[in-house]
Amino acid sequence: MAAIFSKERFLEELDQCPEFEGINSEELADKLSILADIGKTPDGGITRFPYTNEEKQAKSVFKEWMSEIGLDVREDAIGNLFGTLHGSSPDLPVVMTGSHLDSVPNGGAFDGPLGCLSSLLAIKAIASKQEKPKRSIELAVFVDEEGARFKNGIFGSRVMMGEVDAADFKSFKDDKGNVLYDEMVRCGHDPERVQDSYRNPEDIHAFLELHIEQGKRLESANKNIGIVSGIAGPSWTCFTFIGNTDHAGNTPMNFRRDTLAAAAEFILKVEQAPGRFSQTAVATVGKINVFPNGTNVISGKTEVIVDARDIDLAARDAMISALKDEAMNLSKVRGVTVDINDGINISPVIVPDHIQEVIQSSAEASGMTSLFLPSGAGHDAMTLGKYVPSGMIFVPSLNGKSHSPEEWTSLPDCIRGVQVLKESLARLANS
Amino acid sequence: MAAIFSKERFLEELDQCPEFEGINSEELADKLSILADIGKTPDGGITRFPYTNEEKQAKSVFKEWMSEIGLDVREDAIGNLFGTLHGSSPDLPVVMTGSHLDSVPNGGAFDGPLGCLSSLLAIKAIASKQEKPKRSIELAVFVDEEGARFKNGIFGSRVMMGEVDAADFKSFKDDKGNVLYDEMVRCGHDPERVQDSYRNPEDIHAFLELHIEQGKRLESANKNIGIVSGIAGPSWTCFTFIGNTDHAGNTPMNFRRDTLAAAAEFILKVEQAPGRFSQTAVATVGKINVFPNGTNVISGKTEVIVDARDIDLAARDAMISALKDEAMNLSKVRGVTVDINDGINISPVIVPDHIQEVIQSSAEASGMTSLFLPSGAGHDAMTLGKYVPSGMIFVPSLNGKSHSPEEWTSLPDCIRGVQVLKESLARLANS
Repeated sequence: MAAIFSKERFLEELDQCPEFEGINSEELADKLSILADIGKTPDGGITRFPYTNEEKQAKSVFKEWMSEIGLDVREDAIGNLFGTLHGSSPDLPVVMTGSHLDSVPNGGAFDGPLGCLSSLLAIKAIASKQEKPKRSIELAVFVDEEGARFKNGIFGSRVMMGEVDAADFKSFKDDKGNVLYDEMVRCGHDPERVQDSYRNPEDIHAFLELHIEQGKRLESANKNIGIVSGIAGPSWTCFTFIGNTDHAGNTPMNFRRDTLAAAAEFILKVEQAPGRFSQTAVATVGKINVFPNGTNVISGKTEVIVDARDIDLAARDAMISALKDEAMNLSKVRGVTVDINDGINISPVIVPDHIQEVIQSSAEASGMTSLFLPSGAGHDAMTLGKYVPSGMIFVPSLNGKSHSPEEWTSLPDCIRGVQVLKESLARLANS
Repeated sequence: MAAIFSKERFLEELDQCPEFEGINSEELADKLSILADIGKTPDGGITRFPYTNEEKQAKSVFKEWMSEIGLDVREDAIGNLFGTLHGSSPDLPVVMTGSHLDSVPNGGAFDGPLGCLSSLLAIKAIASKQEKPKRSIELAVFVDEEGARFKNGIFGSRVMMGEVDAADFKSFKDDKGNVLYDEMVRCGHDPERVQDSYRNPEDIHAFLELHIEQGKRLESANKNIGIVSGIAGPSWTCFTFIGNTDHAGNTPMNFRRDTLAAAAEFILKVEQAPGRFSQTAVATVGKINVFPNGTNVISGKTEVIVDARDIDLAARDAMISALKDEAMNLSKVRGVTVDINDGINISPVIVPDHIQEVIQSSAEASGMTSLFLPSGAGHDAMTLGKYVPSGMIFVPSLNGKSHSPEEWTSLPDCIRGVQVLKESLARLANS
């Protein structure tokens, strides 16, 4: 079943939603539908780029919802949005939770918004109790997580952690030539005051983000909740094989220096590599550029980009190093040359044991099945995790679909996620 | 050494040219230079498309040269050019020889023109003898061999053999939308009279074409003359692997249905196949289309086009059939599907033994080394060869380069080719 989001379709499984104290399933469906209508595409997907009117509108709606449940709302200098439920010991480092409201082009209704709304509903449930939590709980909506407009993702959380300064804002442009800095100003932000957006990691006790899995492991294992053990940032390496462009008809097989054949051999090495290095490693060739890419021309140049990820940094780097050796060896045997260029390289972030345990025990206490799993995709929690104890709760993705209108998580699965987030936040806020 | 054609450079090896009766090496250099200046590109290459002013000019110059040596010149209804040296028995089927004057975009000075000029110089030498040959010898310059403008190659010879009719002319357009039919008329031809261009195969005793090898076998073996044993027309088959588009980070290796990995395995099977079927078979994957071709996306669809050639039709077809089986097998093992579509399929043409023997004995008699080899590229001789005994004489290509400004055959190698062509034509014309 390929599902395109609509409120009606989402509500079809309302009667299968378990009941949890303080959590209203219909409210989640209502609010997710309202967000899904902002930036809706003809395909039933969502295009909601950062620093656009669509994102502004989504944030404005979300601000109102935070105010309605009594949170203390503010926006920082670059457009990150915060809402605080004050605890009984407001001077203690806060527990933070949240996600993002921007999207990829023609993306789905869940990636980002579900995390923000789960945080909202979880905090609402906590706020509705008689006893205040000890620590304040702060809801964060980070701007520009996807990087779809300015090719500069996980942006708001990186600004908050002091990784970006105002000078950088002027170097990023969208496809139409609009400069990030100017667009921030146009949206009413004050990029010159970026330092006011920086947060001291010591003021944050923990960070939790709920997100759709964007994979099939929960679905395949038939589990409710994914407890993320670490976030494997991508490492990209470009291998360029250079040989000879020759006529496909007039060049005997033993005269060839065929770079596409060399690349093919290498792609199989990449596919076989991960298991030799760790249980959690993955390696992918999704992009290949063949020159001249003509049916009757032996390719003289082929570029292959390897995307390698693992939550174990040493294992990942050993795998990349081994693949570089393989490329050199096979290029020698084949009489072609290979140029190797390192691209982006984001270190994995480990989720501390005590954060994983809080999520696991919260899931157990709520009667849910769970699974420990790495996140292969980057998230705002990856930035936070470098500085403060951070964790992620995954909910199942139908068919593993993501970044497409077919992105889908059932309402009961969403509600189970909200419950585990609520329990985990409450425990962390009282620890 | 990468060589760009110039008359000066070509003449640097003039003193190494062997002397042959009736053949003037400087004349070849002069005439090849004159043709190379028509349609010259800034790179030093040549763009001379069919039914353009450039091709018209080249044919006009060539017509004059044929008249100068006393040939009876005429142009057919679609622009093929002929010049006849009448024999002593003009009613016998003629011996035909020739090539083409059109080029690929930014092509070289030799592909086509060298064949036409070698025929001209060979016939001139034969004509200068006291005794007339028994059969008439006819020089043919075929239009549009390369197919670079109307994507419709080996055109003039196919028209001559009755494979194309006037209705077809209206269906071909160039990149600017100009219709082939209209362009023929613009150039003064009469496409409605196409049937006047048809020739009866019984009127042709044999056809010989001299051409650059466009490969490296003669150069590697250090031989003067290639005796083409057969012309292996291409057969193209498109294999489309269909699997799942998934996130490169969030999809464990054993959950994948990665079509680029499947294609890679298949490309290696293609590379290994030819040797199992014949000594002359070749198989190439030069073109691959990966969807979506994103670094962090496991490819859900990959198209691979196999170019398979052999002068042995049965061996070639057995190879293609085996590759189809391999594709089916590996797709099953990998849990992907494969669609297989047959594309163009041109049957190989065998050069009759007696034609190969004429060329071989002519080379031997002239003191040259030679090599039997298949032609992997298509030529006008491939069309003629379906109907009349046809052969080809190859001369060495420096570094195997062709269809580029770096196309180069040394003047001594060219002259040796002219000599072998002259001897072969004389023998066939008296047989």
